[in-house]
Amino acid sequence: MTVRTGRHFLQIPGPTNVPDRVLRAMSAPTLDHRGPEFAGLARRVLGALKPVFATSGPVVVYPSSGTGAWEAALVNTLSPGDRVLCFETGHFATLWRDMARSLGLEVEWVPGDWRHGASPEAAADVLAADPGHRIKAVCVVHNETSTGVTSRVPEIRAALDDAGHPALLLVDTVSSLGSIEYRHDDWGVDVTVTGSQKGLMLPPGLGFNAVSDKALAAARTSRLPKSFWDWTPVIEANEAGFFPYTPATNLLYGLDEALRMLAEEGLEQVWRRHARHAAATRAAVRGWGLEVLCADEREHSGSLTAVLLPDGQDADAVRKIVLERFDMSLGTGLGRVAGKVFRIGHLGHLNDLTLAGTLAGVQMGLKLTGIPVGPEGLAEALDHLRTD
Amino acid sequence: MTVRTGRHFLQIPGPTNVPDRVLRAMSAPTLDHRGPEFAGLARRVLGALKPVFATSGPVVVYPSSGTGAWEAALVNTLSPGDRVLCFETGHFATLWRDMARSLGLEVEWVPGDWRHGASPEAAADVLAADPGHRIKAVCVVHNETSTGVTSRVPEIRAALDDAGHPALLLVDTVSSLGSIEYRHDDWGVDVTVTGSQKGLMLPPGLGFNAVSDKALAAARTSRLPKSFWDWTPVIEANEAGFFPYTPATNLLYGLDEALRMLAEEGLEQVWRRHARHAAATRAAVRGWGLEVLCADEREHSGSLTAVLLPDGQDADAVRKIVLERFDMSLGTGLGRVAGKVFRIGHLGHLNDLTLAGTLAGVQMGLKLTGIPVGPEGLAEALDHLRTD
Amino acid sequence: MTVRTGRHFLQIPGPTNVPDRVLRAMSAPTLDHRGPEFAGLARRVLGALKPVFATSGPVVVYPSSGTGAWEAALVNTLSPGDRVLCFETGHFATLWRDMARSLGLEVEWVPGDWRHGASPEAAADVLAADPGHRIKAVCVVHNETSTGVTSRVPEIRAALDDAGHPALLLVDTVSSLGSIEYRHDDWGVDVTVTGSQKGLMLPPGLGFNAVSDKALAAARTSRLPKSFWDWTPVIEANEAGFFPYTPATNLLYGLDEALRMLAEEGLEQVWRRHARHAAATRAAVRGWGLEVLCADEREHSGSLTAVLLPDGQDADAVRKIVLERFDMSLGTGLGRVAGKVFRIGHLGHLNDLTLAGTLAGVQMGLKLTGIPVGPEGLAEALDHLRTD
Amino acid sequence: MTVRTGRHFLQIPGPTNVPDRVLRAMSAPTLDHRGPEFAGLARRVLGALKPVFATSGPVVVYPSSGTGAWEAALVNTLSPGDRVLCFETGHFATLWRDMARSLGLEVEWVPGDWRHGASPEAAADVLAADPGHRIKAVCVVHNETSTGVTSRVPEIRAALDDAGHPALLLVDTVSSLGSIEYRHDDWGVDVTVTGSQKGLMLPPGLGFNAVSDKALAAARTSRLPKSFWDWTPVIEANEAGFFPYTPATNLLYGLDEALRMLAEEGLEQVWRRHARHAAATRAAVRGWGLEVLCADEREHSGSLTAVLLPDGQDADAVRKIVLERFDMSLGTGLGRVAGKVFRIGHLGHLNDLTLAGTLAGVQMGLKLTGIPVGPEGLAEALDHLRTD
Repeated sequence: MTVRTGRHFLQIPGPTNVPDRVLRAMSAPTLDHRGPEFAGLARRVLGALKPVFATSGPVVVYPSSGTGAWEAALVNTLSPGDRVLCFETGHFATLWRDMARSLGLEVEWVPGDWRHGASPEAAADVLAADPGHRIKAVCVVHNETSTGVTSRVPEIRAALDDAGHPALLLVDTVSSLGSIEYRHDDWGVDVTVTGSQKGLMLPPGLGFNAVSDKALAAARTSRLPKSFWDWTPVIEANEAGFFPYTPATNLLYGLDEALRMLAEEGLEQVWRRHARHAAATRAAVRGWGLEVLCADEREHSGSLTAVLLPDGQDADAVRKIVLERFDMSLGTGLGRVAGKVFRIGHLGHLNDLTLAGTLAGVQMGLKLTGIPVGPEGLAEALDHLRTD
Repeated sequence: MTVRTGRHFLQIPGPTNVPDRVLRAMSAPTLDHRGPEFAGLARRVLGALKPVFATSGPVVVYPSSGTGAWEAALVNTLSPGDRVLCFETGHFATLWRDMARSLGLEVEWVPGDWRHGASPEAAADVLAADPGHRIKAVCVVHNETSTGVTSRVPEIRAALDDAGHPALLLVDTVSSLGSIEYRHDDWGVDVTVTGSQKGLMLPPGLGFNAVSDKALAAARTSRLPKSFWDWTPVIEANEAGFFPYTPATNLLYGLDEALRMLAEEGLEQVWRRHARHAAATRAAVRGWGLEVLCADEREHSGSLTAVLLPDGQDADAVRKIVLERFDMSLGTGLGRVAGKVFRIGHLGHLNDLTLAGTLAGVQMGLKLTGIPVGPEGLAEALDHLRTD
Repeated sequence: MTVRTGRHFLQIPGPTNVPDRVLRAMSAPTLDHRGPEFAGLARRVLGALKPVFATSGPVVVYPSSGTGAWEAALVNTLSPGDRVLCFETGHFATLWRDMARSLGLEVEWVPGDWRHGASPEAAADVLAADPGHRIKAVCVVHNETSTGVTSRVPEIRAALDDAGHPALLLVDTVSSLGSIEYRHDDWGVDVTVTGSQKGLMLPPGLGFNAVSDKALAAARTSRLPKSFWDWTPVIEANEAGFFPYTPATNLLYGLDEALRMLAEEGLEQVWRRHARHAAATRAAVRGWGLEVLCADEREHSGSLTAVLLPDGQDADAVRKIVLERFDMSLGTGLGRVAGKVFRIGHLGHLNDLTLAGTLAGVQMGLKLTGIPVGPEGLAEALDHLRTD
Repeated sequence: MTVRTGRHFLQIPGPTNVPDRVLRAMSAPTLDHRGPEFAGLARRVLGALKPVFATSGPVVVYPSSGTGAWEAALVNTLSPGDRVLCFETGHFATLWRDMARSLGLEVEWVPGDWRHGASPEAAADVLAADPGHRIKAVCVVHNETSTGVTSRVPEIRAALDDAGHPALLLVDTVSSLGSIEYRHDDWGVDVTVTGSQKGLMLPPGLGFNAVSDKALAAARTSRLPKSFWDWTPVIEANEAGFFPYTPATNLLYGLDEALRMLAEEGLEQVWRRHARHAAATRAAVRGWGLEVLCADEREHSGSLTAVLLPDGQDADAVRKIVLERFDMSLGTGLGRVAGKVFRIGHLGHLNDLTLAGTLAGVQMGLKLTGIPVGPEGLAEALDHLRTD
């Protein structure tokens, strides 16, 4: 048996460290989901979600994973055989594409190298080549959790606008919402998809769709079969503070508390904090003489950093030694970058000293694996934290 | 503000009172869902679920409501236009029917009076009238939560067998599993659907499908679009202790503990306990001179009792007074029986004295609403509890 | 192994059922007891305690039991060989007397029958017979937890005043504070002693002394040796929000929450609620044809009821059967009334239906033990609860 | 309002970070302290405490602070006017001396410089000068929490033995038990005093006395007044699993879990872990070019390190900046070394990366305060952690 002495360092890019306040809130007794006390909770939570998505429209909450919320975005807006434009930004973009195909959609796939975000230029080209508007939706992963690259959603929006193309804009913000600047309304997003277990600082178990008027209009003619994911009965029932299914009560307690914490800190400050931790982490990676996977300075993720190891080095060996010696979980390389990168999550409920401990663990783990790094990595990160 | 002095009596037929042990287990820190510690948890939980369903086959766990698990049962086994046989046993059977239609299935609907279970005789008739086997599945709600009537699933199975009909048997056990005798394998059920928030003593947020070999075979040819609900990747990933999506970690902690509690008590004893509390509750209803909604002695529910009020009485007025005066939640009448019945949940983590307090509250509430009942109701329930 | 199905009924007269809110508050991480956050907590709690004691003077909080707070009251105010007047109201009064003797005090002991409170008449007689004022303190147990009798403290105060006697008035409110009307300042009490685990709705672990100016003056000349219990350094350190020893941080978190709950309900309402539950309980006892131990209508306790069994009946047999069959803890008979009474606690975080369940359990337990009681007991209690 | 993003670093030398497992255990419902379930808990805990003290004798548990346990050690064994030998090792030794005087004992005080432990040589001299055995007890603080110096208790024991002196040996292990090697029986200690909030990983609120046969014998003739602290009724009641006062139930739940954790890790490993973290911390201090307060290599504390700042520097300024900028609590300088030292706690539930984060925070804090330190401090600590 492993004996844990001290708190585990959960530094994967989500699920993130759930604050004690949230865990305690979640341990309140379950209540009647058809009673007045629940209705008060539901209305409070549904209201407090809007500023986090920066939307004035409805946010639909599912008892589901973020994956489920992907499916909801597709089945509510599209019809069998509809064409969607997707970008190969990494593992999760690929999975979302696969889902679209499984549901009977056709996918226009813009290949990528997993080191860049969705290309606004490529988007412009594809849209220009679609004068008949066969493309019904553009799907973008805002922050690709497998690579630590943040796509420039406003530029994708501009590409749509410039082309005068009516396709919907669907955006996955699973690892960015509540961590990286994001504005559903201002950026003209039609469906924003997210999950509970990252910037929202909850355990996994809730999926979300923020929905624009245009998406609601699309839903009225969409013909993909749907029942559980159907927005309409949810939005209707939500008005009275209820749900058409039994909601995940205790996760909603936690959400209520987490939204309170985000409001207390202020969303702008939340974004600044994440950006600062990300910059300190990149300073460490450079100090170690290693490469950050993200290849475009405009696209560095505020919530995680994927570290690319030199050829011949096994990133999973680093992760294993770090877990065994220092009780820290780092993110594994997924898909095409498996074994080549490990990922440091620096999102959610995190402070400077936990980040310092995290980077100290990475530095020791690299050295123990035989990757020649010096103390400069951590030293530069601390300089950043101390002076910024 | 309402000040709660003492613990709320949550006596709706689910969500049920979550044991402190389970709430505490759920408040453990979230962990890496791709790490070895999680794999141990997942394998333990997936193994411990099997005896609760009385199956040796796989049980698929979703982060979802029970409604989601209904959808999973349908989309994994059926194809657009397939015909399913459904029985009008109450509100939830009706909702499941509606879902089937929304997903593009055709429904053969056996009407009912909401006071009886699914009729084996009607099943036999319909199946006999389907020599071409156009019916691909028979959907039964084992314990209809809106009426407190338990359908005789083995007799439906026998009707299928007697007719030599190959349709799948899909059973909703949302409010019976872990409360009322149920045997997936022995009863020849193909998909058993349930949720976490009733007999499993968890908060809502998990849906389950226990799956027979025959259902797995059907899944290979099923053509309803599916991705999130698709059994195949889940069952595959589960073998190593993982999930193809981020699982609802903290609910799984709670499930681990709840399954331990069910095993400690012993499933047969769990069933006996529920049957005894149900009998005591019916003794109370009779003592008050009121009618139990369930009209067939063979079909009384072990997990809830729907109490039918005399004409002209408003069941919701009773519920309201009971909530305001005695801080107890009772179940409302749903659908066709709205206003006519209220429902007493007596399932999950419950003991004799909490049931006694519950029935005392109902008795006082009835009297305060102006329904002339005497103390005999509670007295007879206590006689039952004392002597049985 | 006993498997608990449902929540244990903890109906002893303390420790009482700790509200979930308080348990959750206590599970927050421990913090630096010399830091600013702690100081804020301490000042808030020390301020919120005053209205509960109905005092404007200091309240000293110890990490201790109520027994420890007894000792603190004595060693801070008295000197070796000092004479104190004590009344034999029951087991706890006797223990306090024994403590006084152990600490080197002389005790004037007014015997009693354990069915009445401290006699104001006897007090007047003893004080009149002490013109030299050898008696330095009068010790009264406000609510004798072993008997369910509440002494009339204002009448004892009047006896002191009428005699013009300068003795201090020390009052044990372990099982009355936060449950039964009590007013430290108005009633001219010099030291009020209490513990955390009853009306204050916390787990055991804190002891309290509310201290009058006269008691503070006495402390300046008191010569009983003291260090841990010494009020002076505590009161001094408290001014800045600190303690001269490491305080029981997490119990203080709980106290903070419990005091908030008492304030939300309002102390007058808290007293009314307890009195109402006590009256309902006595109605049950009378309905069973049994006797309440307390023999004076003016002295019935609001927080517990001791039930006297007919000769030849074993009260502990009732308790045993109730624990084994119904998972309820009742209070045992202590000292002189061991085996003859059992005690029903109805204080702290309690509501009508839990009391109803409690009385149902007692009724069934009596019957199962062979004590011939009918259903009238519970029925009369419910009539009381319904109509009052 | 301060918004906490991430977990506070509580790196004072106690109270220490309470493990989640312990906090969750403490949040179980309070139970009947006179019932069979409690007796099982009490016996288990009392048994599991013995190996932690390395004793086969009784351990008395009080609901109190460690200060209270000091008082218990004195009042149970000594009589008014008895002479005790104390050593000025720091703030807490001074407080214990003051307590002895307050309780009416005479103190032989060996002065010290707060950088060394209790001197075995001085002890030998004093004892040799006491042929009449007027000294009845020798009081040693094993690990002086104000200085980070660990006294060599076995050498003090040897001094007593060599002198053939019958005085009792009373040892304060508040900040060493469960962290630094300690052996009550083998080292011939008569009373070992400790508290719950350091190596035992609990919140504050429990005090402990491990008691030798010789101490029990002394208790029979001791004449200091006592009641709450009296060992005799506690040890008697403990045999049946009970306490003569209401015990601090929920802290005992926590103790049960904490003792389980210590047993899982193994006490020898617990000691090794603390020694390793202490050595890494001293490496950091040397790397910063600063001085450790402890001046004797044989006496470095395994549980905390006091860092001495150069003349003219204000240690509290460092602490303040570290708290405000990095949400970490460090220990303040107490008494004679106030302002000159700050203390880093590295005891209890702690792992390498939390220590690394701690030292990173100290390093940044020193620099921000204007104390010229380089990155070598942390780098050397990490070298130690990586290679040891």
